[in-house]
Amino acid sequence: MDKTLIKSPTLMLDEEKCKNNIAFMADKAKRLQLAFRPHFKTHQSALVSGWLKEAGVKRCTVSSVKMARYFAGHRWDDILIAFPANPREHEAINKLANQISLQLLVYDVRTLEMLEHKLESRVGIKIELDLGSCRSGLLTTQYEEINELLACIMSSSKFHFTGFYSHPGHAYAAHGKDEVQKIYQTFLPELLDLEKKYKKTPGFCITIGDTPGCTIIEEYGPVKEISPGNFVFYDAMQVNIGSCTYDDIAVVVACPVVGKNAQRNELLIHGGAVHFSKEVLTDADGTTHYGKLAIPTSSGWHGMIDGCYLKSISQEHGLIHATDEYLAKTEIGDIVYIYPAHSCLAADLMKSYFLTTNGEQLMGSEIFMP
Amino acid sequence: MDKTLIKSPTLMLDEEKCKNNIAFMADKAKRLQLAFRPHFKTHQSALVSGWLKEAGVKRCTVSSVKMARYFAGHRWDDILIAFPANPREHEAINKLANQISLQLLVYDVRTLEMLEHKLESRVGIKIELDLGSCRSGLLTTQYEEINELLACIMSSSKFHFTGFYSHPGHAYAAHGKDEVQKIYQTFLPELLDLEKKYKKTPGFCITIGDTPGCTIIEEYGPVKEISPGNFVFYDAMQVNIGSCTYDDIAVVVACPVVGKNAQRNELLIHGGAVHFSKEVLTDADGTTHYGKLAIPTSSGWHGMIDGCYLKSISQEHGLIHATDEYLAKTEIGDIVYIYPAHSCLAADLMKSYFLTTNGEQLMGSEIFMP
Repeated sequence: MDKTLIKSPTLMLDEEKCKNNIAFMADKAKRLQLAFRPHFKTHQSALVSGWLKEAGVKRCTVSSVKMARYFAGHRWDDILIAFPANPREHEAINKLANQISLQLLVYDVRTLEMLEHKLESRVGIKIELDLGSCRSGLLTTQYEEINELLACIMSSSKFHFTGFYSHPGHAYAAHGKDEVQKIYQTFLPELLDLEKKYKKTPGFCITIGDTPGCTIIEEYGPVKEISPGNFVFYDAMQVNIGSCTYDDIAVVVACPVVGKNAQRNELLIHGGAVHFSKEVLTDADGTTHYGKLAIPTSSGWHGMIDGCYLKSISQEHGLIHATDEYLAKTEIGDIVYIYPAHSCLAADLMKSYFLTTNGEQLMGSEIFMP
Repeated sequence: MDKTLIKSPTLMLDEEKCKNNIAFMADKAKRLQLAFRPHFKTHQSALVSGWLKEAGVKRCTVSSVKMARYFAGHRWDDILIAFPANPREHEAINKLANQISLQLLVYDVRTLEMLEHKLESRVGIKIELDLGSCRSGLLTTQYEEINELLACIMSSSKFHFTGFYSHPGHAYAAHGKDEVQKIYQTFLPELLDLEKKYKKTPGFCITIGDTPGCTIIEEYGPVKEISPGNFVFYDAMQVNIGSCTYDDIAVVVACPVVGKNAQRNELLIHGGAVHFSKEVLTDADGTTHYGKLAIPTSSGWHGMIDGCYLKSISQEHGLIHATDEYLAKTEIGDIVYIYPAHSCLAADLMKSYFLTTNGEQLMGSEIFMP
């Protein structure tokens, strides 16, 4: 790989690592007889969606109407917008629902009522559940609200019920596989109760969508569909959770070194909040950081450079804490590879991919959501 | 202003507030006989740069070569790239230096040596100083390094010295005007010593570029040029520092309400890390948040809704902590206006402006850096 092509902060994508991650999750879904509806909010890329299609994926999840429109334009015809439906977007929803099989997420009957007035095409409705993340959705025991939603869905020719959906976001706060397992052990019995109650409702299905759980868990109980997103790339956060190792991370931000401060064991890079966002991680030893350093190889990267991390960022600047050894061998003009703390946000900001396979910088809406 | 035009998260720009902020800083610079070279990294907008031009601004500061290229394409012909020069970008720098009067920032002689080999056109060089922010630059007392840089600049026909530059970023950690003043009182004597030593060096000038200082301070000692950026918009962070009031903030992110949880006093909005970044603020009372809520008016917004704040964000979701009163009057489908914690990062992410003056959504590279 020709590093002289890298002039400024560049999002590198390792096709092989990414395809391995895709194969892992597709195989797991097959093995456990789970339907697989991956979330595309992480990669936001027609290119990567093509790799998922090659792995047998036929349906997807997105996080906005805009993203649904982009992927509908790239021949995805079965899309779930896994974000509480926004009645103000009814025109865009109508257009999409005319084109493809579209599912919306709802957990408030007022939203359904507004949609019922405005929608012209038939859409699938999933009811969102809150399994402990305390963000959005109904509790599994809010039978009254669930029944009200179901009644509203059934009574309208514009809606059809397609099941329950939850993103157990609290799994991202786990430290290690055991904690992820405990989180699942807490909510799976709740879902069993829900299944008992609603399994005869036409369209019943339970979909779960977090990368830690979908990676780590082997027993899904009544869950019949998974929709993880981050797994295509993984990131430093997922390493801390226990979902992957650094070797699995398929993206790094390549950043030029522009300064060096030996007294403070620091390297200054071009690479800041407009490239990484400001997601900050706390390691088990208490270190807070915005990313870790990868070991470059002739064809990409692997592992992690011990003792080095992206310790602070401002708009365009990044400061790396470097060991004496790493500092000694790194100079202004060099490129460092940084695993982002949160690859979804880094990919959203970078807006293009540089493929390590052929050193090609891929940009434009055919590759990446504009 | 017609709120029905707002369907999804939208960056609103109040032209009058923005022009008032511009007038304030332009007038202050004039009154104190300071040259005014505003930083364009906050607005990244040809449109807003035009308002600065109308206020008499002739030169600007940017934070990347890419941004310099954008503004050079919009008839700015005197640009300082206030980010440590990256020798890998020599080709783009050469092209720009052929077109316009270009200044680069340097604080390491190795950078200058690499540039000397690669540059074809003459560029101005400012030496970066670290006045306490501990990010980049030389200490004012690193005479040996400063002299080495000056010797290198003087010995090359490709360079000419244009002075010293510093961004006292530690002013952003201040709580109140007194702390900003103390920070200035600490480094201004250092700059006086520097002036004594180098004032006869051709090109000598001292430029300072932080919004808290440039807004609050009245005595600049040897500083002869200011380059603040954030002041065109201000934000919730600047309110906490003491640079402005909520009434001065010229941008809000308008976010649709998509959920409501009365038990938890929460409103769920479409508005997350891909709109605000993940800059988090801690108020004097210990509340941490990602933004505050503005009071809508018929033509825009003012003030702040007491007791309400953006308490958590994920990729597309935002959770507002709402008072009982605010919760009672806010429904799914409403629009809330949020002052971003950090307007530079929100503007960078949003990539278009909706003008409150005429309700026009302005997009495209003629308005905003693509």
